[in-house]
Amino acid sequence: MLKKILIANRGEIAMRILRTAKEMGIKTVAVYSTADAKSLHLRFADEAVCIGPSASKDSYLKQLNILAAAEVTNADAIHPGYGFLSENANFSRSCQKMGIKFIGGTPENIERMGDKASAKATMKEAGVPTVPGSDGLIKSYEEAVKIAKEIGYPVMLKATAGGGGKGMRAIWKEENLKSSWESAVQEAVAAFGNGGMYMEKLIEEPRHIEIQIAGDKYGKAIHLSERDCSVQRRHQKLAEETPSPFVSEELRKKMGDAAVRAAEYIKYEGVGTIEFLVDKYENFYFMEMNTRIQVEHPITEQITDLDLLKLQIELAAGARVPKNNFYPQRHSIECRINAEDVYTDFRPSPGKITTLNIPGGNGVRVDTHVYSGYTIPPFYDSMIAKLIVTAPTRSEAIIKMKRALDEFYIEGVKTTIPLHRQLMDDPNFLKGDYTTKFMEDFVLDKKYEYDL
Amino acid sequence: MLKKILIANRGEIAMRILRTAKEMGIKTVAVYSTADAKSLHLRFADEAVCIGPSASKDSYLKQLNILAAAEVTNADAIHPGYGFLSENANFSRSCQKMGIKFIGGTPENIERMGDKASAKATMKEAGVPTVPGSDGLIKSYEEAVKIAKEIGYPVMLKATAGGGGKGMRAIWKEENLKSSWESAVQEAVAAFGNGGMYMEKLIEEPRHIEIQIAGDKYGKAIHLSERDCSVQRRHQKLAEETPSPFVSEELRKKMGDAAVRAAEYIKYEGVGTIEFLVDKYENFYFMEMNTRIQVEHPITEQITDLDLLKLQIELAAGARVPKNNFYPQRHSIECRINAEDVYTDFRPSPGKITTLNIPGGNGVRVDTHVYSGYTIPPFYDSMIAKLIVTAPTRSEAIIKMKRALDEFYIEGVKTTIPLHRQLMDDPNFLKGDYTTKFMEDFVLDKKYEYDL
Repeated sequence: MLKKILIANRGEIAMRILRTAKEMGIKTVAVYSTADAKSLHLRFADEAVCIGPSASKDSYLKQLNILAAAEVTNADAIHPGYGFLSENANFSRSCQKMGIKFIGGTPENIERMGDKASAKATMKEAGVPTVPGSDGLIKSYEEAVKIAKEIGYPVMLKATAGGGGKGMRAIWKEENLKSSWESAVQEAVAAFGNGGMYMEKLIEEPRHIEIQIAGDKYGKAIHLSERDCSVQRRHQKLAEETPSPFVSEELRKKMGDAAVRAAEYIKYEGVGTIEFLVDKYENFYFMEMNTRIQVEHPITEQITDLDLLKLQIELAAGARVPKNNFYPQRHSIECRINAEDVYTDFRPSPGKITTLNIPGGNGVRVDTHVYSGYTIPPFYDSMIAKLIVTAPTRSEAIIKMKRALDEFYIEGVKTTIPLHRQLMDDPNFLKGDYTTKFMEDFVLDKKYEYDL
Repeated sequence: MLKKILIANRGEIAMRILRTAKEMGIKTVAVYSTADAKSLHLRFADEAVCIGPSASKDSYLKQLNILAAAEVTNADAIHPGYGFLSENANFSRSCQKMGIKFIGGTPENIERMGDKASAKATMKEAGVPTVPGSDGLIKSYEEAVKIAKEIGYPVMLKATAGGGGKGMRAIWKEENLKSSWESAVQEAVAAFGNGGMYMEKLIEEPRHIEIQIAGDKYGKAIHLSERDCSVQRRHQKLAEETPSPFVSEELRKKMGDAAVRAAEYIKYEGVGTIEFLVDKYENFYFMEMNTRIQVEHPITEQITDLDLLKLQIELAAGARVPKNNFYPQRHSIECRINAEDVYTDFRPSPGKITTLNIPGGNGVRVDTHVYSGYTIPPFYDSMIAKLIVTAPTRSEAIIKMKRALDEFYIEGVKTTIPLHRQLMDDPNFLKGDYTTKFMEDFVLDKKYEYDL
């Protein structure tokens, strides 16, 4: 078993790692930038080492400083958390070379899944569904017709140099392909000076549903069911739940099997996530793999009674995965509490927390590193807490989230709490009827700013 | 279903009731003494009514004021919590007369189980084991010999006027009875001017183990397994756990059956607790019944996935009990955090909480009404929070409790946190080897006062 883990991260995930390490009897080393010198987790770690000034590139991303800290403190493992160096193959390899266990994917795992094209090709080999489309650029209109017929309508034409929707066309029938092809190429040439086009199947009413997996060094993997992360704004997840209101037992089994196949194919070691896009016909397509612990992992813990950090550390130390897959025993929802002003285009709202009341009681879990009097530095991610509720059913979990949000008082900074309050009142969210487009049509209502 | 509940209590249990009522969509009325005007739960209740000055007898025990508040606010039910009026048959009857549902035992339930002699007689009728002994005073030495033979050695002789151990003798063999009888009578006459003696079986290495039950108005009851509450000081419980490290599956079944028999015999309505003394041979004896929700109910919630307040409210509204008994699915421990100076004979330590950090994360639940800046009034119970942890096994739960206690910072007042820290390190507690005598031999060690 590991003896001492250096935690190469900050904020709530640093606390999260530290808690489990402590419970496992493993010593901990916290590293911190000068901006984080007053962080709570430094008080709980066995040792703390300053690794640089506030800018991430000079501290939490500074590989040499972190490796030096590990060497000086004699840590036998590094936990990178999420973000920062967690999916950096070079860093994983440097750890390996120094004989320090990197608690995350192997360099090969990270390299293979880090590059989009390589990841997609690998998944195809593994027999995992990927979004069907052209192999690279389409040479002519005639080829476009052929490919569209192969992958089936509706399809998306996308300019290879595209951005902001320019040179992009959704095509529902062959009879519209010609005019769309011509106008899209024209538009792309005008906008980017490059008319190169590729084609992908159009995913109707897409949901972002991911499968949590765990793999061991003996080549075996299991899955721990799904998380629905479709509530997102500009690709930033805001709230997650498990089980997904959209996923049937049959679909869960299919997606779970595919995720396990993917993990075993690449001999994945540790905990990881296979992200899928799921269309309204219950077709699912590989999107990407995260070779690390996810922000939203607690909801999986809540419905499976597992400690995922413990599992991750055990796997890193050479343990085998549990024998069976895990299925939801209850319902859990997470709301990300960010220090942002949702009414001013989600502008970050760093500063001092003057009043703090954290919700509690039956079925409520809070993962946070902040306290009353804490000053949120402006340099990092704006997430300051994760509010997680668990109940026998989805409707009970939503009601519990409402009352927990009502109890969550933070003064001194603005937070995403009003948005979550409104979300828990939204008729479509209540019905479980939401896709990744959901937040695009979500009009924030100021009445949720105060509840009393 | 009930529409509006008046909460006739304060502190954490007021918050606890309010949370579940809110989750059930039931309106709430908080009542408060002038000393509690800044209580957190007043902000979350739909209405709040002041019922008198700080002294309990003029506010939380003032039946007329509470009933008037219920009438004025048109509440259709009163939840008494624990303590105060929760086991007051008169109050339960007054509510009944006014057509207000008292969320607790019926007046008959409370009367029957409130008086020790009547409760013991009732349990004998129901076939529930009670501590064997003489029926009242023993007339002569010859009768003492006869009774001792009947109930079996060891026995306790007790002076009816006794106290402080005077006129009390433990007798392990018949050959010692005569001399003990004579010296005890002599001592009692000298000390109290009254030589009257009665006899009870001596309970060897007694543990306080209680069974949570729930009964409906249709005469059916179930049990929800046990809680071990043997860690107590002067009959005040300090920490509780479930399952009990002492209780085998077979014993759990036997005690559960007896508790259900007891509840059904008295047609108990609502949630309640049958407290037993259990000796080292796994014999168990009825001690008393609590016709209310207990402080330590959360640990049962944690191992059964039930919300006991919800169940209680549903039963009060006429629901049926679930079909089956509930058995432990995992392990849970509660530590009572009291504002007391454990190093100064547990002297209450009211005052302002200047710094507060509440533990969180996987498997940690906190039920509290306090916040940073809250002033604990000197008038009431000193409990300010319940720290509850849950894990797959007992040893994991203990380790989790240690790390949660380490994270629990309260400045401004003294608390029982150092005691709990020491408890979680105690070799006998770790072995599960403790009885109700355990705290008598517990020597507090100052080194647990600070952990950093």
